[in-house]
Amino acid sequence: MTRHPVKHDFPPSRVRRFLEPGPIVLVSSRWQGKTNIMTLGWHTVLEFTPSLVGLMISAGNHSFHMIRASRECVINLPTTELVDTVVGIGNCSGAQVDKFATFGLTAEPADAVGAPLIAECHAAFECRLFDDLMVDRYNFFVFEVVKAHVAAKPEHPETLHYTGDGVFLRSGAPLDKRALFRPEMLG
Amino acid sequence: MTRHPVKHDFPPSRVRRFLEPGPIVLVSSRWQGKTNIMTLGWHTVLEFTPSLVGLMISAGNHSFHMIRASRECVINLPTTELVDTVVGIGNCSGAQVDKFATFGLTAEPADAVGAPLIAECHAAFECRLFDDLMVDRYNFFVFEVVKAHVAAKPEHPETLHYTGDGVFLRSGAPLDKRALFRPEMLG
Repeated sequence: MTRHPVKHDFPPSRVRRFLEPGPIVLVSSRWQGKTNIMTLGWHTVLEFTPSLVGLMISAGNHSFHMIRASRECVINLPTTELVDTVVGIGNCSGAQVDKFATFGLTAEPADAVGAPLIAECHAAFECRLFDDLMVDRYNFFVFEVVKAHVAAKPEHPETLHYTGDGVFLRSGAPLDKRALFRPEMLG
Repeated sequence: MTRHPVKHDFPPSRVRRFLEPGPIVLVSSRWQGKTNIMTLGWHTVLEFTPSLVGLMISAGNHSFHMIRASRECVINLPTTELVDTVVGIGNCSGAQVDKFATFGLTAEPADAVGAPLIAECHAAFECRLFDDLMVDRYNFFVFEVVKAHVAAKPEHPETLHYTGDGVFLRSGAPLDKRALFRPEMLG
Protein backbone atom coordinates (compact mmCIF):
# COMPACT_ATOMS: atom_id res chain seq x y z
CA MET A 1 0.00 0.00 0.00
CA THR A 2 1.26 3.42 -0.93
CA ARG A 3 1.76 5.80 1.97
CA HIS A 4 -0.38 8.88 2.54
CA PRO A 5 2.00 11.78 3.22
CA VAL A 6 0.71 14.03 6.00
CA LYS A 7 0.18 17.41 4.40
CA HIS A 8 0.10 20.81 6.04
CA ASP A 9 -1.23 24.19 4.95
CA PHE A 10 1.09 25.97 2.56
CA PRO A 11 0.82 29.55 1.24
CA PRO A 12 -0.85 29.55 -2.20
CA SER A 13 1.44 32.42 -3.24
CA ARG A 14 4.39 30.00 -2.99
CA VAL A 15 3.21 27.05 -5.10
CA ARG A 16 5.80 27.94 -7.75
CA ARG A 17 8.15 26.08 -5.41
CA PHE A 18 6.59 22.83 -6.66
CA LEU A 19 5.12 23.72 -10.05
CA GLU A 20 7.82 25.84 -11.67
CA PRO A 21 10.24 22.87 -11.89
CA GLY A 22 7.76 21.37 -14.38
CA PRO A 23 6.57 18.09 -12.86
CA ILE A 24 3.89 15.81 -14.21
CA VAL A 25 0.78 16.39 -12.09
CA LEU A 26 -2.47 14.53 -11.48
CA VAL A 27 -5.52 16.75 -11.87
CA SER A 28 -8.57 15.57 -9.96
CA SER A 29 -12.13 16.76 -10.53
CA ARG A 30 -15.72 16.14 -9.47
CA TRP A 31 -18.93 16.80 -11.38
CA GLN A 32 -22.45 15.50 -10.81
CA GLY A 33 -21.27 13.11 -8.11
CA LYS A 34 -18.49 11.50 -10.16
CA THR A 35 -14.77 11.97 -9.67
CA ASN A 36 -12.00 11.74 -12.21
CA ILE A 37 -8.21 12.10 -12.52
CA MET A 38 -6.00 13.01 -15.46
CA THR A 39 -2.25 13.07 -15.96
CA LEU A 40 -1.02 16.47 -17.14
CA GLY A 41 2.35 17.92 -18.10
CA TRP A 42 1.40 21.15 -19.86
CA HIS A 43 1.12 23.78 -17.16
CA THR A 44 2.79 26.99 -16.05
CA VAL A 45 2.78 29.40 -13.15
CA LEU A 46 1.34 32.78 -14.18
CA GLU A 47 1.28 34.97 -11.05
CA PHE A 48 2.17 34.87 -7.34
CA THR A 49 -0.74 36.90 -5.90
CA PRO A 50 -3.38 35.98 -6.73
CA SER A 51 -1.79 32.56 -7.13
CA LEU A 52 -2.47 31.81 -10.80
CA VAL A 53 -1.53 28.76 -12.82
CA GLY A 54 -2.37 27.88 -16.41
CA LEU A 55 -3.28 24.33 -17.44
CA MET A 56 -3.66 23.08 -21.00
CA ILE A 57 -6.36 20.40 -20.70
CA SER A 58 -7.01 18.84 -24.08
CA ALA A 59 -10.70 18.83 -25.01
CA GLY A 60 -10.37 15.13 -25.86
CA ASN A 61 -10.13 14.35 -22.15
CA HIS A 62 -13.18 13.42 -20.11
CA SER A 63 -11.76 15.72 -17.42
CA PHE A 64 -12.05 18.73 -19.74
CA HIS A 65 -15.83 18.71 -19.60
CA MET A 66 -16.00 17.98 -15.87
CA ILE A 67 -13.59 20.78 -15.04
CA ARG A 68 -15.19 23.25 -17.41
CA ALA A 69 -18.63 22.57 -15.93
CA SER A 70 -17.56 22.51 -12.27
CA ARG A 71 -15.04 25.36 -12.69
CA GLU A 72 -12.78 23.64 -10.15
CA CYS A 73 -10.01 21.07 -9.88
CA VAL A 74 -7.19 19.94 -7.62
CA ILE A 75 -3.59 19.78 -8.88
CA ASN A 76 -1.88 16.87 -7.09
CA LEU A 77 1.88 16.31 -7.12
CA PRO A 78 2.88 12.64 -7.42
CA THR A 79 6.39 11.41 -6.66
CA THR A 80 8.39 8.85 -8.61
CA GLU A 81 7.02 5.90 -6.64
CA LEU A 82 3.65 6.59 -8.29
CA VAL A 83 5.01 6.43 -11.84
CA ASP A 84 3.07 3.34 -12.89
CA THR A 85 -0.13 4.94 -11.60
CA VAL A 86 0.68 8.18 -13.44
CA VAL A 87 1.07 6.27 -16.71
CA GLY A 88 -2.00 4.12 -16.08
CA ILE A 89 -4.19 7.15 -15.44
CA GLY A 90 -3.02 8.71 -18.70
CA ASN A 91 -3.75 5.48 -20.58
CA CYS A 92 -7.49 5.26 -19.89
CA SER A 93 -10.53 7.53 -19.85
CA GLY A 94 -12.76 8.55 -16.99
CA ALA A 95 -15.67 7.99 -19.37
CA GLN A 96 -15.08 4.24 -18.93
CA VAL A 97 -13.20 3.90 -15.66
CA ASP A 98 -13.46 5.04 -12.02
CA LYS A 99 -9.85 6.11 -11.66
CA PHE A 100 -9.73 6.29 -7.86
CA ALA A 101 -11.04 2.71 -7.61
CA THR A 102 -9.04 1.30 -10.52
CA PHE A 103 -5.72 2.64 -9.28
CA GLY A 104 -6.35 2.17 -5.57
CA LEU A 105 -6.11 5.88 -4.81
CA THR A 106 -7.75 7.60 -1.85
CA ALA A 107 -10.04 10.59 -2.38
CA GLU A 108 -9.84 13.08 0.48
CA PRO A 109 -12.25 15.99 0.81
CA ALA A 110 -10.81 19.38 -0.10
CA ASP A 111 -11.45 22.49 2.00
CA ALA A 112 -12.51 25.02 -0.61
CA VAL A 113 -13.57 23.03 -3.70
CA GLY A 114 -15.69 20.00 -4.46
CA ALA A 115 -12.95 18.10 -6.30
CA PRO A 116 -11.08 15.60 -4.08
CA LEU A 117 -7.42 15.56 -3.08
CA ILE A 118 -5.40 12.43 -3.84
CA ALA A 119 -4.11 11.29 -0.44
CA GLU A 120 -1.11 9.43 -1.92
CA CYS A 121 0.39 12.59 -3.44
CA HIS A 122 3.07 14.81 -1.87
CA ALA A 123 1.15 18.05 -2.39
CA ALA A 124 -2.32 19.15 -3.47
CA PHE A 125 -3.42 22.56 -4.72
CA GLU A 126 -7.13 23.39 -4.68
CA CYS A 127 -8.05 25.48 -7.71
CA ARG A 128 -10.99 27.59 -8.88
CA LEU A 129 -11.37 28.70 -12.47
CA PHE A 130 -10.12 32.29 -12.70
CA ASP A 131 -10.38 32.97 -16.44
CA ASP A 132 -11.65 30.95 -19.39
CA LEU A 133 -10.55 33.48 -22.01
CA MET A 134 -8.22 30.98 -23.69
CA VAL A 135 -10.26 27.80 -23.28
CA ASP A 136 -12.10 27.85 -26.61
CA ARG A 137 -9.00 28.64 -28.62
CA TYR A 138 -6.27 26.68 -26.78
CA ASN A 139 -7.95 24.50 -24.11
CA PHE A 140 -5.94 26.67 -21.71
CA PHE A 141 -7.52 27.29 -18.29
CA VAL A 142 -6.30 29.95 -15.86
CA PHE A 143 -6.89 28.75 -12.29
CA GLU A 144 -6.42 30.43 -8.93
CA VAL A 145 -4.89 28.23 -6.26
CA VAL A 146 -7.16 28.99 -3.30
CA LYS A 147 -5.73 26.47 -0.84
CA ALA A 148 -2.49 24.47 -0.80
CA HIS A 149 -1.45 21.37 1.15
CA VAL A 150 2.16 20.14 1.20
CA ALA A 151 3.96 17.33 3.05
CA ALA A 152 6.78 18.63 5.25
CA LYS A 153 9.26 15.95 4.18
CA PRO A 154 11.17 15.38 2.02
CA GLU A 155 12.02 18.98 1.22
CA HIS A 156 12.71 18.05 -2.40
CA PRO A 157 10.50 15.08 -3.33
CA GLU A 158 11.61 13.15 -6.39
CA THR A 159 9.16 14.20 -9.10
CA LEU A 160 8.49 13.05 -12.68
CA HIS A 161 9.20 15.24 -15.70
CA TYR A 162 7.85 13.93 -18.98
CA THR A 163 9.81 14.08 -22.23
CA GLY A 164 7.21 12.30 -24.38
CA ASP A 165 7.65 8.88 -25.98
CA GLY A 166 7.23 7.03 -22.67
CA VAL A 167 10.32 8.49 -20.98
CA PHE A 168 10.34 10.57 -17.81
CA LEU A 169 13.22 12.40 -16.17
CA ARG A 170 13.42 12.16 -12.41
CA SER A 171 14.15 15.40 -10.57
CA GLY A 172 17.72 15.31 -9.29
CA ALA A 173 19.89 16.97 -6.70
CA PRO A 174 19.23 20.56 -5.62
CA LEU A 175 21.72 23.25 -6.53
CA ASP A 176 21.71 26.14 -4.06
CA LYS A 177 22.71 29.39 -5.75
CA ARG A 178 21.21 31.76 -3.18
CA ALA A 179 24.55 33.51 -2.73
CA LEU A 180 24.47 34.74 -6.34
CA PHE A 181 21.00 36.30 -6.23
CA ARG A 182 20.19 39.90 -5.43
CA PRO A 183 18.33 39.85 -2.09
CA GLU A 184 15.10 41.22 -3.56
CA MET A 185 14.92 38.25 -5.93
CA LEU A 186 14.74 35.76 -3.06
CA GLY A 187 11.99 34.92 -0.59
CA MET B 1 35.60 28.97 -22.40
CA THR B 2 32.21 27.26 -22.53
CA ARG B 3 31.76 24.87 -25.41
CA HIS B 4 29.42 25.50 -28.32
CA PRO B 5 27.36 22.33 -28.82
CA VAL B 6 26.92 21.52 -32.51
CA LYS B 7 23.19 21.68 -33.13
CA HIS B 8 21.17 19.98 -35.84
CA ASP B 9 17.71 20.57 -37.26
CA PHE B 10 14.98 19.15 -35.06
CA PRO B 11 11.24 18.89 -35.84
CA PRO B 12 9.38 21.83 -34.22
CA SER B 13 6.44 19.48 -33.52
CA ARG B 14 8.69 17.59 -31.09
CA VAL B 15 10.05 20.39 -28.88
CA ARG B 16 7.92 19.11 -25.96
CA ARG B 17 10.82 16.63 -25.61
CA PHE B 18 12.87 19.48 -24.09
CA LEU B 19 10.27 21.96 -22.80
CA GLU B 20 7.67 19.75 -21.12
CA PRO B 21 10.13 18.68 -18.37
CA GLY B 22 10.02 22.32 -17.25
CA PRO B 23 13.59 23.63 -17.52
CA ILE B 24 14.73 27.17 -16.98
CA VAL B 25 15.31 28.71 -20.41
CA LEU B 26 17.13 31.75 -21.75
CA VAL B 27 14.98 33.84 -24.06
CA SER B 28 16.93 35.94 -26.57
CA SER B 29 15.55 38.84 -28.54
CA ARG B 30 16.54 41.62 -30.95
CA TRP B 31 14.89 44.96 -31.57
CA GLN B 32 16.21 48.09 -33.27
CA GLY B 33 19.71 46.63 -33.56
CA LYS B 34 20.03 45.65 -29.88
CA THR B 35 19.98 42.15 -28.47
CA ASN B 36 18.89 40.97 -25.06
CA ILE B 37 18.51 37.79 -22.99
CA MET B 38 16.23 36.96 -20.10
CA THR B 39 15.99 33.97 -17.75
CA LEU B 40 12.52 32.42 -17.75
CA GLY B 41 10.85 29.56 -15.91
CA TRP B 42 7.16 30.19 -16.55
CA HIS B 43 6.37 28.45 -19.82
CA THR B 44 4.27 25.59 -21.15
CA VAL B 45 3.79 23.60 -24.30
CA LEU B 46 0.33 24.27 -25.81
CA GLU B 47 0.14 22.28 -29.07
CA PHE B 48 2.23 19.94 -31.25
CA THR B 49 1.18 21.16 -34.73
CA PRO B 50 1.47 24.04 -35.11
CA SER B 51 4.19 23.88 -32.49
CA LEU B 52 2.85 26.31 -29.86
CA VAL B 53 4.41 27.30 -26.56
CA GLY B 54 3.21 29.85 -24.01
CA LEU B 55 5.65 32.14 -22.19
CA MET B 56 4.81 34.39 -19.26
CA ILE B 57 7.17 37.34 -19.73
CA SER B 58 6.68 39.85 -16.95
CA ALA B 59 6.11 43.39 -18.23
CA GLY B 60 8.80 44.59 -15.82
CA ASN B 61 11.45 42.99 -18.03
CA HIS B 62 13.25 44.96 -20.70
CA SER B 63 12.76 41.87 -22.91
CA PHE B 64 8.97 42.23 -22.71
CA HIS B 65 8.98 45.38 -24.81
CA MET B 66 11.59 44.11 -27.28
CA ILE B 67 9.70 40.86 -27.83
CA ARG B 68 6.33 42.53 -28.06
CA ALA B 69 7.62 44.99 -30.64
CA SER B 70 9.63 42.51 -32.70
CA ARG B 71 7.04 39.71 -32.31
CA GLU B 72 9.90 37.20 -32.20
CA CYS B 73 12.27 35.49 -29.80
CA VAL B 74 14.50 32.44 -29.44
CA ILE B 75 14.03 30.00 -26.55
CA ASN B 76 17.49 28.64 -25.65
CA LEU B 77 18.04 25.62 -23.40
CA PRO B 78 21.00 26.00 -21.02
CA THR B 79 22.53 23.05 -19.18
CA THR B 80 23.69 22.99 -15.57
CA GLU B 81 27.20 24.15 -16.42
CA LEU B 82 25.68 27.54 -17.33
CA VAL B 83 23.95 27.99 -13.97
CA ASP B 84 25.97 31.04 -12.88
CA THR B 85 25.23 32.69 -16.21
CA VAL B 86 21.53 31.85 -15.87
CA VAL B 87 21.42 33.53 -12.46
CA GLY B 88 23.51 36.48 -13.60
CA ILE B 89 21.23 37.16 -16.56
CA GLY B 90 18.21 37.14 -14.27
CA ASN B 91 19.93 39.54 -11.87
CA CYS B 92 20.38 42.45 -14.26
CA SER B 93 18.42 44.35 -16.89
CA GLY B 94 19.03 44.67 -20.61
CA ALA B 95 18.17 48.35 -20.18
CA GLN B 96 21.61 48.77 -18.53
CA VAL B 97 23.68 45.85 -19.75
CA ASP B 98 24.63 44.13 -23.02
CA LYS B 99 23.99 40.59 -21.84
CA PHE B 100 25.85 38.76 -24.61
CA ALA B 101 28.99 40.83 -23.92
CA THR B 102 28.69 40.84 -20.11
CA PHE B 103 28.29 37.08 -19.85
CA GLY B 104 30.64 36.12 -22.67
CA LEU B 105 27.91 34.48 -24.72
CA THR B 106 28.00 34.05 -28.48
CA ALA B 107 25.13 35.35 -30.63
CA GLU B 108 24.56 33.19 -33.69
CA PRO B 109 22.21 34.19 -36.50
CA ALA B 110 18.89 32.37 -36.56
CA ASP B 111 17.35 31.07 -39.79
CA ALA B 112 13.80 32.35 -39.56
CA VAL B 113 13.82 35.20 -37.03
CA GLY B 114 15.92 38.26 -36.25
CA ALA B 115 16.63 37.28 -32.64
CA PRO B 116 19.97 35.48 -32.15
CA LEU B 117 20.61 31.93 -30.93
CA ILE B 118 22.90 31.50 -27.92
CA ALA B 119 25.70 29.24 -29.20
CA GLU B 120 26.55 27.92 -25.73
CA CYS B 121 23.10 26.36 -25.21
CA HIS B 122 22.13 22.75 -25.90
CA ALA B 123 19.07 23.63 -27.97
CA ALA B 124 17.48 26.71 -29.51
CA PHE B 125 13.90 27.19 -30.69
CA GLU B 126 13.14 30.06 -33.04
CA CYS B 127 9.74 31.55 -32.27
CA ARG B 128 7.27 33.92 -33.91
CA LEU B 129 4.40 35.49 -32.00
CA PHE B 130 1.27 33.46 -32.76
CA ASP B 131 -1.29 35.12 -30.49
CA ASP B 132 -1.18 38.09 -28.12
CA LEU B 133 -4.70 37.57 -26.74
CA MET B 134 -3.41 37.08 -23.21
CA VAL B 135 -0.55 39.59 -23.20
CA ASP B 136 -2.39 42.59 -21.78
CA ARG B 137 -4.06 40.61 -19.00
CA TYR B 138 -1.36 38.06 -18.05
CA ASN B 139 1.85 38.96 -19.91
CA PHE B 140 1.34 35.56 -21.54
CA PHE B 141 2.60 35.21 -25.13
CA VAL B 142 1.67 32.31 -27.41
CA PHE B 143 4.56 31.61 -29.77
CA GLU B 144 4.94 29.24 -32.69
CA VAL B 145 8.26 27.42 -32.85
CA VAL B 146 9.13 27.81 -36.52
CA LYS B 147 12.60 26.28 -36.45
CA ALA B 148 14.38 24.11 -33.89
CA HIS B 149 18.07 23.28 -33.37
CA VAL B 150 19.23 20.58 -30.94
CA ALA B 151 22.63 19.08 -30.10
CA ALA B 152 22.76 15.32 -30.76
CA LYS B 153 24.52 14.50 -27.50
CA PRO B 154 23.89 14.00 -24.66
CA GLU B 155 20.44 12.55 -25.24
CA HIS B 156 19.32 13.84 -21.82
CA PRO B 157 21.28 17.00 -21.01
CA GLU B 158 21.32 18.00 -17.35
CA THR B 159 18.95 20.96 -17.17
CA LEU B 160 17.99 23.44 -14.43
CA HIS B 161 14.55 23.52 -12.82
CA TYR B 162 13.88 26.50 -10.59
CA THR B 163 12.06 26.22 -7.26
CA GLY B 164 12.37 29.89 -6.29
CA ASP B 165 14.44 31.25 -3.40
CA GLY B 166 17.75 30.69 -5.19
CA VAL B 167 17.50 26.91 -5.42
CA PHE B 168 17.42 24.88 -8.63
CA LEU B 169 16.80 21.17 -9.09
CA ARG B 170 19.00 19.42 -11.61
CA SER B 171 17.27 17.00 -13.98
CA GLY B 172 18.10 13.45 -12.97
CA ALA B 173 18.14 9.96 -14.42
CA PRO B 174 15.65 8.98 -17.13
CA LEU B 175 12.94 6.47 -16.31
CA ASP B 176 11.81 4.54 -19.38
CA LYS B 177 8.17 3.47 -19.06
CA ARG B 178 7.49 2.91 -22.76
CA ALA B 179 6.33 -0.66 -22.08
CA LEU B 180 3.38 0.63 -20.05
CA PHE B 181 2.03 3.04 -22.65
CA ARG B 182 -0.62 2.32 -25.24
CA PRO B 183 1.18 2.43 -28.64
CA GLU B 184 -0.87 5.40 -29.89
CA MET B 185 0.40 7.48 -26.97
CA LEU B 186 4.04 7.15 -28.04
CA GLY B 187 6.01 8.61 -30.94
